[in-house]
Amino acid sequence: MIGRFRYDNEVFRGEVRGERIVVERGLYCDTFVLSELELLPPTDPSKIICVGLNYVDHAVELDMPIPKKPLIFLKPPSAVIGHLGKIVYPDTAQRVDYEAELAVVIGKRCKNVPSENAGSVIMGYACFNDVTARDLQREDGQWTRSKSFDTFAPVGPFITEPGVDVRDISIKTRVNGKLRQDSRTSNLIFSLPELIEFISGIMTLEAGDIIATGTPPGVGELSVGDEIEIEIEDIGVLKNSVVRSQKT
Amino acid sequence: MIGRFRYDNEVFRGEVRGERIVVERGLYCDTFVLSELELLPPTDPSKIICVGLNYVDHAVELDMPIPKKPLIFLKPPSAVIGHLGKIVYPDTAQRVDYEAELAVVIGKRCKNVPSENAGSVIMGYACFNDVTARDLQREDGQWTRSKSFDTFAPVGPFITEPGVDVRDISIKTRVNGKLRQDSRTSNLIFSLPELIEFISGIMTLEAGDIIATGTPPGVGELSVGDEIEIEIEDIGVLKNSVVRSQKT
Repeated sequence: MIGRFRYDNEVFRGEVRGERIVVERGLYCDTFVLSELELLPPTDPSKIICVGLNYVDHAVELDMPIPKKPLIFLKPPSAVIGHLGKIVYPDTAQRVDYEAELAVVIGKRCKNVPSENAGSVIMGYACFNDVTARDLQREDGQWTRSKSFDTFAPVGPFITEPGVDVRDISIKTRVNGKLRQDSRTSNLIFSLPELIEFISGIMTLEAGDIIATGTPPGVGELSVGDEIEIEIEDIGVLKNSVVRSQKT
Repeated sequence: MIGRFRYDNEVFRGEVRGERIVVERGLYCDTFVLSELELLPPTDPSKIICVGLNYVDHAVELDMPIPKKPLIFLKPPSAVIGHLGKIVYPDTAQRVDYEAELAVVIGKRCKNVPSENAGSVIMGYACFNDVTARDLQREDGQWTRSKSFDTFAPVGPFITEPGVDVRDISIKTRVNGKLRQDSRTSNLIFSLPELIEFISGIMTLEAGDIIATGTPPGVGELSVGDEIEIEIEDIGVLKNSVVRSQKT
């Protein structure tokens, strides 16, 4: 697993081996202890492309037809926070929801990638939370404002190797320890290779870009003080808490 | 006016004085002739925030109510091209439209900027074309896919000084020399300071980010081979042509 860290104002990637972080420096390696480093979001994307309704069981839950094409939207890079970062509840929202998602992190610049080659452009996988101000989403019709607040794109904790088989792994959300979402990626309507083909047919993807692949059933509300954990099998556990906005 | 250029693989900003480009290098200056430099888009934004329906006369044209709040959406940085860049007509679209807009380029990182301080975060202004695949916009409901194709965010040619008074200047579109849009920024529903307050209340803005402030009446279709000019008084003329997609 690969993480991103800061130490003495230097930002770098490192391999996570339990509590030890190994950083390649050309011919030699530096080793740190995790606790002495500041943990950053594992990627610094130029863009975040999210997919709407993409779990069969979520479509059934909402009584919506299965979409024929992926429905995409963007979140801004300014919304990214990492593991243990605070989700800030905006003053202007009345209802803020979690949405657990499997994120694909792109490994290199690419365009028009056929699904059969999608594996070659994947850096790895991470947990993602598509935090959404549900009341503002309904008010606007367009989803951008409701999903673009600072801190509304938690991702992490690390990026797993691209070799992980993500076709049938469990994805779970717990809020204050209570299970809220519990599904498997085998319920995805559009597979990751299909999404990469579709999205890279529209826009050039850059190394570090995030594709968030949609959320399973059970989305629900967050309140100030809540602790939320998104656990994806073989990928990790992304933990964040919710705090009140404090405008400065 | 400030432009962005490439010469010998080095990318830099320079002041545009007619055909001469002056580049500050600490204590001295380099001077180039415009024709010996590669002209780049004048900014390299971390995000592009666009505003929907924001001209009174466009709302009247569409018989739509005047919005009570700005409606925002995002275009990805991968869509940016500069002056004289080619707009690529996607294979998957049946109708591609121009939308002339005044762009504000942000000058420094900021959050929660009150409208009365908006001037302090503006680097300057440029012409912008919110190119849109109208058929895909209707098909999706969400606007992201239709507005996110590579080359769908022409901006430029340069960034004018922030001192330009943009409250009542003309904005025009010509396609193959024929006038298609012709309005004034005095028809804006939400002023630039109001937009900066609204958007920076949602997300942190970074230096170089673009806010595209909406299009006046007269949006219409582009075809392969068309030449499109967006002219904004005191800002400049942004010229682009439309070419067929050539997948490699």
